[in-house]
Amino acid sequence: MKHASEDMVEWFPASVKEPSTLQIDNLRDKFMQARDHKLPKAIVGIGGGSTMDVAKALSVMMCNEGSASQYQGWDLVPNPGIYKIGIPTVAGSGAEASRTAVLMGKERKFGINSDHSMFDAIILDSSLIKNVPIAQRFYSGMDCYIHCVESLQGTMINELAKGNASKALELCEKVFLSDGDDDMLLTASYMGGVSIVNSEVGVCHALSYGLSLELGYRHGFANCVAFNVLDEYYGPWVDRFREMLKIHKIELPKNVCRSLDEAAMQRMVNMTLKMERPLTNALGENWKDKMTPNKIVSLYERM
Amino acid sequence: MKHASEDMVEWFPASVKEPSTLQIDNLRDKFMQARDHKLPKAIVGIGGGSTMDVAKALSVMMCNEGSASQYQGWDLVPNPGIYKIGIPTVAGSGAEASRTAVLMGKERKFGINSDHSMFDAIILDSSLIKNVPIAQRFYSGMDCYIHCVESLQGTMINELAKGNASKALELCEKVFLSDGDDDMLLTASYMGGVSIVNSEVGVCHALSYGLSLELGYRHGFANCVAFNVLDEYYGPWVDRFREMLKIHKIELPKNVCRSLDEAAMQRMVNMTLKMERPLTNALGENWKDKMTPNKIVSLYERM
Repeated sequence: MKHASEDMVEWFPASVKEPSTLQIDNLRDKFMQARDHKLPKAIVGIGGGSTMDVAKALSVMMCNEGSASQYQGWDLVPNPGIYKIGIPTVAGSGAEASRTAVLMGKERKFGINSDHSMFDAIILDSSLIKNVPIAQRFYSGMDCYIHCVESLQGTMINELAKGNASKALELCEKVFLSDGDDDMLLTASYMGGVSIVNSEVGVCHALSYGLSLELGYRHGFANCVAFNVLDEYYGPWVDRFREMLKIHKIELPKNVCRSLDEAAMQRMVNMTLKMERPLTNALGENWKDKMTPNKIVSLYERM
Repeated sequence: MKHASEDMVEWFPASVKEPSTLQIDNLRDKFMQARDHKLPKAIVGIGGGSTMDVAKALSVMMCNEGSASQYQGWDLVPNPGIYKIGIPTVAGSGAEASRTAVLMGKERKFGINSDHSMFDAIILDSSLIKNVPIAQRFYSGMDCYIHCVESLQGTMINELAKGNASKALELCEKVFLSDGDDDMLLTASYMGGVSIVNSEVGVCHALSYGLSLELGYRHGFANCVAFNVLDEYYGPWVDRFREMLKIHKIELPKNVCRSLDEAAMQRMVNMTLKMERPLTNALGENWKDKMTPNKIVSLYERM
């Protein structure tokens, strides 16, 4: 990559595992030291959801004190970040449109959700996603499909989120059940992101975070593993999802929690129970009566 | 309206006629003098398309030299404007989402189209549009319907514009042919605006600007008058538009150009011929062979 001498280029190994708050803190320190604490004009995030989330989190952490872990949650960031541009090279996460920068902490996977963690500009160019490996394209695309279903079936929906989610869902189905192209997939990803900014995810995301935490699963893949057992919440869409799995010859692993000890399962349950907003969105204010620790364990055991 | 003493509130008489470059220049001078040339922190545009356009244009003109008329066109604004917030109280224009601030000049109605003339934040609250008079609600809503048709039927379309325009069109039809509510209308307006940012209008807008220039017609109304004779370009949607007219008991005037002299008609033809981008979008690169002065006159005479 050609760049001016004062530019810094960092390769983030997003395919290895999800970005962590510690990585963000270290990257911020490294950049600021190398630049003699002079703030950059802009940060450009080129990659999939994780890489874009790294760019969003870094932008915020260059202008806010302490550790990224302090800002995981909703609207906890006081200062605007550096001007940031997002360029997706994998479609589906919607990170290019959303307020969220999801980061792994010690005990939780959690997003920084703030107006300051939104990109100032994005570039959607479908030629950049054409070489994504089939499985990765599928898992990331399903991230979009799943959060659109969660958004549309949730209680925290409004007409703007509905308009974007229903169109994104339609485009995802065109892409994965029929002959939709990369422009459609990239548009679905963006519109799905817009819908999530204005609504909330649901049961699948609440469970998938636990899988990422204990099994190191990448987000889209974890969502697929979880969604596959959620017939009672998202029946018709789970059926269509299985049709897509078949068409694209994707086989999901079975019994993924078999090797986990009781302590690990407990951490996954705790992680899920922390997802108050998604579970409220999916199940209403009394979600704790429905999503009990036993229920969560039984769902994980079916994956 | 309650406001801090240093805030300035200006009532813009948008229902009288469309905003002009001269009005913007004068408003800018008035504000800057009253504020001792200290720039404001933000500009909030509360109103319909014209009022929001005034806010967008003012924001730009507080940070750029000379007259607003110098920046009518595409990407001619060098400096970013003041932080601006849009709050629509009439739905349809899409001004809350678009790059365009349409202004009347001496000889032309033309938009400032720039990234700097986009709102930094918008607030969509359907309770603010519930008291719009029926006819105004209809004409503004049809502005959305019509630019979505023009966007979808044009050549300058991409998947993102298509996704937004097709959903906005669907919502408009729900609102004006069935029982769609104000949330749907406000969402349609916003998504229609997003689609226009990423595509272009067409024959109807190209003709309607002439009507506004010579007859002083408000934008949405002018669009309705023009669209009603455009069967050869937008047939099925013109049919549906007439159905909406009937349902909402809206009667359009006839022979609107009857009273115009030859010079006025010539100015309308010239205005239409200046709309190169919309006409290229609708009719292709060779639009001049199809949209001749005679053809334009014959269309105006049918209105």
